Amino acid sequence: MEATVCSAPVNTGFDIPARVNREGKPDGTIVRIKDFGDGGKGIVIIAGPCAVESREQLFATARSVKDSGAKIIRGGAFKPRSSPYKFQGMGEEGLRILDEMRKETGMPVVTEVMDARQIELISKNADILQVGSRNMQNFPLLKEVGMSRKPVLLKRGMMSTIEEFLLAAEYILNQGNENVILCERGIRTFEPSTRNTLDLSAVPMLKQLSHLPVIVDPSHGTGLRWMVPSMAKASIAAGADGLIMEVHYDPEQALCDGQQSLSLDEFSLLMTELKRIAAAVDRYIL
Amino acid sequence: MEATVCSAPVNTGFDIPARVNREGKPDGTIVRIKDFGDGGKGIVIIAGPCAVESREQLFATARSVKDSGAKIIRGGAFKPRSSPYKFQGMGEEGLRILDEMRKETGMPVVTEVMDARQIELISKNADILQVGSRNMQNFPLLKEVGMSRKPVLLKRGMMSTIEEFLLAAEYILNQGNENVILCERGIRTFEPSTRNTLDLSAVPMLKQLSHLPVIVDPSHGTGLRWMVPSMAKASIAAGADGLIMEVHYDPEQALCDGQQSLSLDEFSLLMTELKRIAAAVDRYIL
Amino acid sequence: MEATVCSAPVNTGFDIPARVNREGKPDGTIVRIKDFGDGGKGIVIIAGPCAVESREQLFATARSVKDSGAKIIRGGAFKPRSSPYKFQGMGEEGLRILDEMRKETGMPVVTEVMDARQIELISKNADILQVGSRNMQNFPLLKEVGMSRKPVLLKRGMMSTIEEFLLAAEYILNQGNENVILCERGIRTFEPSTRNTLDLSAVPMLKQLSHLPVIVDPSHGTGLRWMVPSMAKASIAAGADGLIMEVHYDPEQALCDGQQSLSLDEFSLLMTELKRIAAAVDRYIL
Amino acid sequence: MEATVCSAPVNTGFDIPARVNREGKPDGTIVRIKDFGDGGKGIVIIAGPCAVESREQLFATARSVKDSGAKIIRGGAFKPRSSPYKFQGMGEEGLRILDEMRKETGMPVVTEVMDARQIELISKNADILQVGSRNMQNFPLLKEVGMSRKPVLLKRGMMSTIEEFLLAAEYILNQGNENVILCERGIRTFEPSTRNTLDLSAVPMLKQLSHLPVIVDPSHGTGLRWMVPSMAKASIAAGADGLIMEVHYDPEQALCDGQQSLSLDEFSLLMTELKRIAAAVDRYIL
Repeated sequence: MEATVCSAPVNTGFDIPARVNREGKPDGTIVRIKDFGDGGKGIVIIAGPCAVESREQLFATARSVKDSGAKIIRGGAFKPRSSPYKFQGMGEEGLRILDEMRKETGMPVVTEVMDARQIELISKNADILQVGSRNMQNFPLLKEVGMSRKPVLLKRGMMSTIEEFLLAAEYILNQGNENVILCERGIRTFEPSTRNTLDLSAVPMLKQLSHLPVIVDPSHGTGLRWMVPSMAKASIAAGADGLIMEVHYDPEQALCDGQQSLSLDEFSLLMTELKRIAAAVDRYIL
Repeated sequence: MEATVCSAPVNTGFDIPARVNREGKPDGTIVRIKDFGDGGKGIVIIAGPCAVESREQLFATARSVKDSGAKIIRGGAFKPRSSPYKFQGMGEEGLRILDEMRKETGMPVVTEVMDARQIELISKNADILQVGSRNMQNFPLLKEVGMSRKPVLLKRGMMSTIEEFLLAAEYILNQGNENVILCERGIRTFEPSTRNTLDLSAVPMLKQLSHLPVIVDPSHGTGLRWMVPSMAKASIAAGADGLIMEVHYDPEQALCDGQQSLSLDEFSLLMTELKRIAAAVDRYIL
Repeated sequence: MEATVCSAPVNTGFDIPARVNREGKPDGTIVRIKDFGDGGKGIVIIAGPCAVESREQLFATARSVKDSGAKIIRGGAFKPRSSPYKFQGMGEEGLRILDEMRKETGMPVVTEVMDARQIELISKNADILQVGSRNMQNFPLLKEVGMSRKPVLLKRGMMSTIEEFLLAAEYILNQGNENVILCERGIRTFEPSTRNTLDLSAVPMLKQLSHLPVIVDPSHGTGLRWMVPSMAKASIAAGADGLIMEVHYDPEQALCDGQQSLSLDEFSLLMTELKRIAAAVDRYIL
Repeated sequence: MEATVCSAPVNTGFDIPARVNREGKPDGTIVRIKDFGDGGKGIVIIAGPCAVESREQLFATARSVKDSGAKIIRGGAFKPRSSPYKFQGMGEEGLRILDEMRKETGMPVVTEVMDARQIELISKNADILQVGSRNMQNFPLLKEVGMSRKPVLLKRGMMSTIEEFLLAAEYILNQGNENVILCERGIRTFEPSTRNTLDLSAVPMLKQLSHLPVIVDPSHGTGLRWMVPSMAKASIAAGADGLIMEVHYDPEQALCDGQQSLSLDEFSLLMTELKRIAAAVDRYIL
């Protein structure tokens, strides 16, 4: 995944953090994940369930989204939930299922790390470490994933400014890990009809200021399954280097986020539409 | 301008106002402006300066954007400005210049009405009455443009919910005027690096709930000239029926909003890009 | 109503508008309303129903709140409502009832003006013209109340910054009317459990920057009857020069805002508590 | 610290989490810290520097605020900073200084824990564990302080709703630790003139819904030293059970948050004013 350079200087009112600053790396960073991510104009699609719920669920979903063109599988083993009474993820059992799946299918896996003490274990079972929105300013965690050599998918906090987002990334780069993917996933506003407000202007802004690749999560950004396709297309038109989307083989039965998960067929259909949008901005789906 | 129908029911948590409700008009409303707007899959581009500054400025800009493919000219004669010490527009002289221009070029004009007492005068000199963000809940004004037969371009308030936006439109329809175009133009959030946060999820949401056409203003939505092209493309990918953009023949010298106005060349280049995006979603630029 | 001077310079990041700037009038403005408002340390309590609903309702409420210590009566004749299908106020009949009441009870009246064409009529029937939140940036209206000699109660827009609020007041002062009362009434945030988020820090900020008196509306600020007393007390502790509160003789039956209106007894009890808070900050209830 | 019961039912639109729910404990929770906190009507004042910077700085500040009436000392050893290039706190050396100070002065100490691996160490050197705003939804950390027996000061996230705040507290109570103090410290809004927007309506709301004590941090809530006194007074008038404030013996030289820290004299003066406000609401400063 890579970011092309925009043409104009930006007056943001803040100092762009040193290591994330595009000026030091005008051609953009390429995060190589296994044999994908040869950079340039390719767009990476990440798909999978909100949470790993069972071997059957993960395998069926992963195989289907792979057939449809996804290149990386997402799936949570440890889930951050607002309430202690909600499903918290399968934990280590979920990790084992993820590892089994990636070995069988050859698909790289991204999964969330919520605690520095889990990094070592998760690193053995996944290819990309996700730092979620609620941990975007968990500085000890940022430092530790910075000491890891694994690529990091860093999600924007739901009430974090672009400046804070770049400073959070800087915490990781500052420890020596430059394999950071920035992810816009919706911010919190006064508007109640969507779960969050997807801030697509963050895409050109982040690409202008930083050399890091930028992806979008339209599933959390909208919270509405039927709205994911239009926002996915808009993300690519806005210049995103990738998408991460929730897909479930039976959204109505999902243990979390079912209302924002695409079905397998919806995802497959969307992929054909995304290819056309990518072509219209001189890019292609990897 | 027309809106195609999305496929899924939406649970918004509020009652959709009766007259704007798509259920009563599933095929969508077509707002016919002069000989344009034959509806269906066409996308209308509205362009022009923030404010009319002189005959020369308006004519030069209008002729150029017409050549590039714009179908309607925007330009403010009466400008709502936060400070009483800033340029307030040319007033009636500005209206006369707009009228002269539309007669010479044949291009329809949209201009803002801030006061019910101006409606009669502005209706003689313009084709579409704009109700600006700050007046979205100016209910006497909404009622009076509702009693007019002119098409109305209604901008979303910068801190108005989708529900309030639809209710504001309902005030107009309720008086008998169904020629209402809804315009997303950015909402106010905590993020300071853009002037507003363009809420592109409003596009599919409004089209799902209402039969009215929906356009986007990426100029006010971002406040940044260099960001307008990416957000314009994203708007069409998200399903917008049109765009309204600020274009100036000399942005550096503009009396208002120069930092968010495209130059004539930038606009021309953008039009070629928009055609490709429109085609990728099975639509076309009118 | 008057504002005492704070001690420290403030770096706001914006230029304080010239006429509202405290530097030009360090002792603060006194808005004299009939025989009240002798300024200095007095705190004015404004109370009454959201809307005038009947002669009986207004008179019963006004007499009771007068007995409890209110000095000005509020009551809407023209009501701005989000939906065209909700009660829009009694209109001119409401104005007549207000006028009759103030003549019988001797109590000054504040009522909202939504349209410049109503100013003359309302000025005959009321003592203070209220410009509501939704009209804070209705610039033609601001200019016209500025040309009036009536005191103006200007409510902060729910989406407006302190800078914009002061600039709106500047529009009025700029026309020659210095009798402006600023009113914080809650801003729009992501928090759903209150109707708005009452921004009490606006009180010291506005008093520091401007010489105009500052009052608070805890009824709209919270939207919750049971929360009004604590926020009313907090407002005075924060330095407010007055309060405006919704009181109804039968909140359950109110045609608007009943859920945030105090009963007559609740208001009476609150007044005794407010006197104690005022004394604790070396002030007194007028 | 304890919370008195308000009188009315609240319709919040969400389920109040089981363990924090006031219904199960109508008399309110008393968090006993050493020999303070005998509950009921007492109000606890917590004061001290943003960060421990030196033995001299902490001791001078602690002795002075103790003389002025503070009952608990705050001071950060591990500091969460947006930028990796800003002062990150003295770390373990800071903890040792805190421990020395509390032994010499007899004052209990509250300090922030950012990482579950620090809990054991910090517990030996401090009396109350603070979970900061950025960690309000760091669920592994919440669970671990819940397994501790130390009192926890939980700060509201700058982006968190009241519901999420109570659910975060529920994570702690759910592990068996009921000694939780809730702290409102300002939320993020569109208003730029203050660092955050202090949401004082959170005080009555939290006390109504939950049995836990509620305190306010006007230093972070406003970011402006000169505004702290008015907001501190307003907090007590709103019903807060305590305050936490930044005080520095030389604010101009502070390594962090100097612009929002009171000087020793300002704090001393404020304490006399707070006593008067407390008395006016039938309470007293402990």
